[in-house]
Parts: sequence; structure tokens; C-alpha cells
Amino acid sequence: MNRRKMITGLSLLAGGAALSAGAAQSGNALVKGFSHHVFFWLKDPKNAQVRKKFQDGLQKLVTVDEIVESHLGVPANTNRDVVVNTYTYSLLLFFKDKADQDIYQTHPTHLKFIEECSALWEKVEVYDTVPF
Amino acid sequence: MNRRKMITGLSLLAGGAALSAGAAQSGNALVKGFSHHVFFWLKDPKNAQVRKKFQDGLQKLVTVDEIVESHLGVPANTNRDVVVNTYTYSLLLFFKDKADQDIYQTHPTHLKFIEECSALWEKVEVYDTVPF
Repeated sequence: MNRRKMITGLSLLAGGAALSAGAAQSGNALVKGFSHHVFFWLKDPKNAQVRKKFQDGLQKLVTVDEIVESHLGVPANTNRDVVVNTYTYSLLLFFKDKADQDIYQTHPTHLKFIEECSALWEKVEVYDTVPF
Repeated sequence: MNRRKMITGLSLLAGGAALSAGAAQSGNALVKGFSHHVFFWLKDPKNAQVRKKFQDGLQKLVTVDEIVESHLGVPANTNRDVVVNTYTYSLLLFFKDKADQDIYQTHPTHLKFIEECSALWEKVEVYDTVPF
């Protein structure tokens, strides 16, 4: 199966599942739904033990059932003027809709993450977006 | 097919396609690959004609073949202290890897978008992330 067909399949599946993919603009999948992107600036970003604890926390966090798709990351090696790369970790989550994101906000797994990890960060920024 | 099975299917497909999904943490899909999130602050964000032109530009932009998955958005109706919602548009793209993102940066469709739309924004911020 070539790449385009695979992606069309992905798009259709996503449409049938919680993420409702719109009509693909070409071969790639245009995802609908609620996007929740969080950037964390840790107090001690070079401390390996702290990083391990935080990464473990993120990996538990993304098991919340309302999350349709997640991406856990660190800044990429890109350095243009417009690129912000001062944060330590990125947590990107897709939900079916705002209602599911609201469930996540008070989910026990999320509250446990905050309890265990919030002392590790000095700043957090959240970008919530919905399709136009 | 229940939701969990659908998502597992999505995860497997994503793994077989350009996005290589990691072992799902539970039922949801943990996406690997390069995430490129751009926030645009337009000079005239309330001007319907400007918005139409910009949205049309974004919709053409996401047809670039190297893009595996895209999400086009505006700030959601969330208003916690940590939420940044001052931007006008969000463009979120997933690539297989940094090399594909580099191709996109100089792709004719991307350059045309910049040519046609860059006069419309006063500020842009880019967050590029890769899995840890």
C-alpha cells in the first residue's frame, strides 16, 4: 500500500473514530477536534532525575481515555528567529471536543500528574485550539 | 467496532504510514514524528476579508505532500490563567521527521503562502518538537 492510500485510510479511520477528519485537502489528513498544547519550563531542566520523573509523569498522563491522540516532545533542533525553544517539554493532546477536554482537566490521572509533577515546573503555557 | 478498537487501528495504520506511532500507552495513539506548531497574530484580526484570505491560504498550505497530519484552528473558548489565547490562527503540522519539515520550509506552496499572506500578520511564533 502506498503512502497516500495509507494516509487516506488513517483519515477515514479517524473520521469513524473520535477524531472527525475533514475532507483531506490532498493526501494528508486534516484533523478536526480540540487541540490542547502545553509547554512546560522546568525549574531544573538539566537534572536527569527530574527529567526522568517528569517524562514518566507525562507518559502516565497520556493514558487518559478521552485523549484521542498525543505527542510528547522536547524542542527540535531548529533555530530560526521565530522559533521558541526555551521550554523543556511539550505535551500535545487531541480530544474529540471541548467536553472531553473538560473531563480530562478533572480526571484523577491528570490530578495525580499535577500533584506529583507541578513542583517541577516554574512556568506553563497552554494553547487550546478548535477548527475554524 | 468500538472506540478502543478503532483507535488501535488508527495507531497501527499510523505506525505503518509516515507517522510511526509508539506502543499505545492505553487505547489512544501516541504519535511520533516532528510536530510544527505555528501561532499567527494578524494585524487586523476582526476583518472578515482578511480572515477569509488567511484561511484560504492555510487551507492551500496544508496540501503540501510531506505533511502527514494537520490541524487548523482558532483559540478555543478556554480562559484559565495559563491559557494563551491572544493569537488569531493556529497551524499545527506533523511531519515524519525534520528532513520532511525542511522540505516543507522551501516548498513552492509554502513560499507562495508567505508571499500572499505574510503582510497580514504582525507576529508569528513557532514551536517545533520531537519525541523524547
